[in-house]
Amino acid sequence: MFVPRPSLGSSLVLIVVAVSGPLVADLAGQPSGGSVARQFRAANGPRILSDYAEFLSIPNVASDSTEIWRNAEFIRDKLIERGVDSRLLSLAGANPIVYGEILVPGASRTLGLYVHYDGQPADPANWTHDPWDPVLYTRAMEDGGEPRPFPETGEAVDPEWRIYARAAGDDKAPIGAMLPVLEAFKASGVEPTSNLIFFFEGEEEAGSTNLGRYLESYGDLIEDIDVWLLFDGPVHQSGRPMLSFGVRGVTGMEVTVYGPIRGLHSGHYGNWAPVPGQMLANLLASMKNDEGEVLIDGFYDTSDPLGPMEKEALRRLPKYDAELKKELGLAWTEGEPQTLPERLQLPSLTVRGLSSGNTGPLARNVIPSAATAALGVRLVKGNDPTHMRELVEAHIRKEGYHIVREDPDMETRLAYRKIAKVTGGGGYPAARSPMDLPILQEVVEAARRAAGNDEVVLSPGSGGSLPLYLFTDVLQKPILMVPIANHDDLQHAPDENLRVWNLWYGIDFYAQLFTMPGG
Amino acid sequence: MFVPRPSLGSSLVLIVVAVSGPLVADLAGQPSGGSVARQFRAANGPRILSDYAEFLSIPNVASDSTEIWRNAEFIRDKLIERGVDSRLLSLAGANPIVYGEILVPGASRTLGLYVHYDGQPADPANWTHDPWDPVLYTRAMEDGGEPRPFPETGEAVDPEWRIYARAAGDDKAPIGAMLPVLEAFKASGVEPTSNLIFFFEGEEEAGSTNLGRYLESYGDLIEDIDVWLLFDGPVHQSGRPMLSFGVRGVTGMEVTVYGPIRGLHSGHYGNWAPVPGQMLANLLASMKNDEGEVLIDGFYDTSDPLGPMEKEALRRLPKYDAELKKELGLAWTEGEPQTLPERLQLPSLTVRGLSSGNTGPLARNVIPSAATAALGVRLVKGNDPTHMRELVEAHIRKEGYHIVREDPDMETRLAYRKIAKVTGGGGYPAARSPMDLPILQEVVEAARRAAGNDEVVLSPGSGGSLPLYLFTDVLQKPILMVPIANHDDLQHAPDENLRVWNLWYGIDFYAQLFTMPGG
Repeated sequence: MFVPRPSLGSSLVLIVVAVSGPLVADLAGQPSGGSVARQFRAANGPRILSDYAEFLSIPNVASDSTEIWRNAEFIRDKLIERGVDSRLLSLAGANPIVYGEILVPGASRTLGLYVHYDGQPADPANWTHDPWDPVLYTRAMEDGGEPRPFPETGEAVDPEWRIYARAAGDDKAPIGAMLPVLEAFKASGVEPTSNLIFFFEGEEEAGSTNLGRYLESYGDLIEDIDVWLLFDGPVHQSGRPMLSFGVRGVTGMEVTVYGPIRGLHSGHYGNWAPVPGQMLANLLASMKNDEGEVLIDGFYDTSDPLGPMEKEALRRLPKYDAELKKELGLAWTEGEPQTLPERLQLPSLTVRGLSSGNTGPLARNVIPSAATAALGVRLVKGNDPTHMRELVEAHIRKEGYHIVREDPDMETRLAYRKIAKVTGGGGYPAARSPMDLPILQEVVEAARRAAGNDEVVLSPGSGGSLPLYLFTDVLQKPILMVPIANHDDLQHAPDENLRVWNLWYGIDFYAQLFTMPGG
Repeated sequence: MFVPRPSLGSSLVLIVVAVSGPLVADLAGQPSGGSVARQFRAANGPRILSDYAEFLSIPNVASDSTEIWRNAEFIRDKLIERGVDSRLLSLAGANPIVYGEILVPGASRTLGLYVHYDGQPADPANWTHDPWDPVLYTRAMEDGGEPRPFPETGEAVDPEWRIYARAAGDDKAPIGAMLPVLEAFKASGVEPTSNLIFFFEGEEEAGSTNLGRYLESYGDLIEDIDVWLLFDGPVHQSGRPMLSFGVRGVTGMEVTVYGPIRGLHSGHYGNWAPVPGQMLANLLASMKNDEGEVLIDGFYDTSDPLGPMEKEALRRLPKYDAELKKELGLAWTEGEPQTLPERLQLPSLTVRGLSSGNTGPLARNVIPSAATAALGVRLVKGNDPTHMRELVEAHIRKEGYHIVREDPDMETRLAYRKIAKVTGGGGYPAARSPMDLPILQEVVEAARRAAGNDEVVLSPGSGGSLPLYLFTDVLQKPILMVPIANHDDLQHAPDENLRVWNLWYGIDFYAQLFTMPGG
C-alpha cells in the first residue's frame, strides 16, 4: 500500500503503516507490479481509454490559463484518488506544476518523474476532427484507419487502435499510462520500491521559461531526487522503445548583411552596387562545406568525447539511415558514411532561414538593401552557448565583416566595407548523463522487462534540445529520457495521435519502473 | 511652315507650298528654331504649365484601356492642332500607338521620335496628393517646397518649381516639351530640317509586349526612319542632360535546391539532413567572388569590346561614384576602382532575392525542404540571352547538380545527390549604337546647343534594359536615348515630379533637334 504524506499545510495526521518491503513481497510469490498492471489493463482496457479521452478533452495550450488550471486540477485529483499526495505548485506569472509524492518507508532511492501536461497550439481548421474531442481510429488514418466508437466494458481492445487528439502523444501519454498503474497498485496493494516524486510541468511547449525558477523555489521538495526521468517525445523511428541519456543544447543567431541603403534598380546599378544576397551566400559558404563540415575555427574543439559505453551503444543502434533517407527523399546526407545517431553527437550549424528581396512572382529587378540568415546551432556536452556564438562571430570578423547589433547608421555604413548585424543568442547547453551510472542502468532494466531485452534502443544522446541542464548542471543530478509515444504520433502537427500499443507499453513500463529491484 | 501629308485614308488634297529651307532661313537672319522656342516659353510659361497639367490629369496606367485611349486621343488632337499629320495605330489586344508625321520637302533625314505616354500604376494612399491631380510646388518636397497655385498669364515662372503627378517625369515630359515647340514653330513659320515621325507607345510600363508587333505591322510607316531617338528616363545623376548610346539586355532565372522532402526538426536531424539554404549559399558563392567578379566560365567572353570613342566617353563622364556611394551608404563597390559607368559595360549577375524557411520572428527550428534564389543577368552588346543562361546552367552542373524544370519526384530525389530546379528565362539582348555615327553626333550637337557644350553627358551605354534590340537588331537602325526629366523625378515611386527647368530644357532641345543643320 502507499504511504502518502499529507499535503503540506494540511493538518492531517501522518499514519505510517509498517509493511513488508515490496521486493520481499515479490520474492515471497505475491503478484509482481508488472503482472498486476498487465492484468489490470487486460481487464479494464475500455475504461482506461475512456478515462484517457476525458483527460485529452481538456484543451491544454500553455497560453490558455483557465484550461491549463483545469488540466492541473484534473491530474491532481486523479493522483490523490490513487493515493498520491498531490498538490499544485505555483509561481506568479507561471502555469502551475502538478506535484505529487509517494514516500515509501525504507526506500533508498527517489525517482523524479517529469512530464508536461501542456500541448502545442492547434488550428482546428487543419485537423480532421476537433483537436480536443478525442476520436478513436481502427489504425492510423494514413494507413486507412476508420473512426470507431470507444469500446464498451468487456470489449477487446486492439493495440493498433489510435486515439486522435492534441497532446495524445506529446505529452499527456505518460500521465495516461501512469494513472492506471497507480490505480492497479492501489487496488492490489502493490507498493513502489522507490520514493516517487511527480513533477508535471504546464508550459514546456511555451519554452519551459519558469522551470528553472520552480526547481529553485521548491528546492526542498526535490532535493532528495536521485535521478530525473523525463517522459517526453516519441520512441525510436523503428517503433522500438528507446531510452536516451542526453539531449543537445541550442543557441543561434540572425545575421544580416547590407548592400545599398535602399533597394536599387539592378539594371542601373547591377555590377557595381554590392549585392547583399551574394555577400551572405559567400559568408555562409565560408562557414560550412558541401560535405557538411563546419569550417569555423574551434567549432568541434570543446565537445566532450564519448565514453566506451556510449560508443558501443551507437554501434548497436538500429541501422535506420537507409530507410530514413528513402522516406525523406535524400540521396545523401551530411557527413556520410556517418549515421544519424553519430552525427547527433556533434554540434551542428543549420541555415534555418534565408531572406532577401523576393523570389517567385514577387521577384523584382532590384538589388535588395539587405539579406538575412537565421542560423541554428545545436550543442553537445562540453559546448558553451556563448562561446560557440563567439566562435561564429570571430569567423564573421575573419571574413572581413564589422559586426553591429542594430541596423548600421550612415556613418557606420560609410566606414566599413562589409557590415553584419548579429542578433539573437541565448539558448542553453546540452545535457548528458553517463550511460554506466548504476541507477540509470536500473531504469534500463525496467524498460527491458516491460518490452523485452532485444527491443529496447539505447541512445547516448538525442538530437533535440530541452533545458535539461537545469537537472544535470544546476541540480547536478543524472537524467534519463524515456519516451512512450509512437514515433509516428504527429506531435506538434495536425492529427496528433497515440497508438494504443504505446499506452499499453507505458503501463507495463511504469509498473516495472515503480517496482524495480534494489530500492 | 509645316507641310503635313494628309491622314492616310482621308481624301484631303496634299498641297505643297514651296518655301525656303529652314537652314537657309537661319543663315538669312530669320529667327532660329532655338530662339523662337525660347521666346515662346518665356512669353507663355504659365500656359505651357497649365496645358501640361491638363495632360497629366488623364490617368495613364496601361491596363486602364478607357483612360489610355483618352490619353492617345488627347495627344493626337494636340498634334493635329499643331500641324502634325497624326492618327492612332491599333492592334487587337494592344494599347494604341499615337503616330504622327511631318514630312519636309527636300529633307534628306528622317528622325523617329519614341515616347511612351503610359505611366506606372500609383496607389493614391502613398502619395501626398492625388497622382492624377497635378500640384505645383515651389521646389522639391524633400527640399522644403510648398504647394502654390499655377501661375497666371504674365506671371514669372521659376525653373525650380516642380509639377507633382504620375508620369510627370516618366514619360509624359517629352510630349509636354514637344507640343509647345510645335506650336511656336507653327506660329512663327519655322520648319523642321528633318522629316519627323512621332511614335508614342501606350504600354511601356507593362513591358512593351506589343512593340515588336507594331513595328512589324506598320513597317511601311517607319521604314524611312534613319535614327530612332528614345525620349525616356531621367538625366544624369549630376543633373546634367545626358545622351546614351545603348542599353543593357536582360535575362534571369530562378534556382531552387532541395533538402528533405518535408521540413525537418533541426535538432533531430541537424548535422545529417542536407540544409538547402547552405547548399544554395555554396552554389551562389561558387558563381561570384567577394570582389564582384563572376566566376562562371565564359561569362565575360562574348561581350563586344568598346571602341576608342566609347572608351574616351567613359573617361570623360562626370566623376560621380564618390557622391553616389555617400548617398547610398556604401564604403565599397563591386570591381573597385572601376566606376559605375565602366561596370555597366559588362554583363552582371545579381541575387535579386533569396528565400528559405523563415527569418525574423517567424524563424523556426527547422531544416527547410528547399531554398530559392532569384538571379538577374544583365547583358551587354554581344551577349545572347539563351547562351548566357546556358553558361549559368553549365556552372550549376559543374557544381554537381542535376538540373530539373519542375519540383523533383521521389525517384529523382533518390537518384541525385544535388538537384537544382532552374526556371524562367526569356529576356532580350542589349542594344548599342556606335558613338561615331554622324547622325548620332548631329543629335549630340543639338543637345549641346540647347544645354551648353560642357553640360552634356555622353554615355556609351546605360545600365537599364529596354527592348531596343527591336530597333538596332530587328530594324537595323541606330538608336540614341535622350532623357529629359530631372534625375530625382521619383519615377515609378510616389510623388513623381518634373522640375520646370527640365521641361524648359526639353523645349530648347526639341527646338534644336527639329532644326538641326544638314537635313
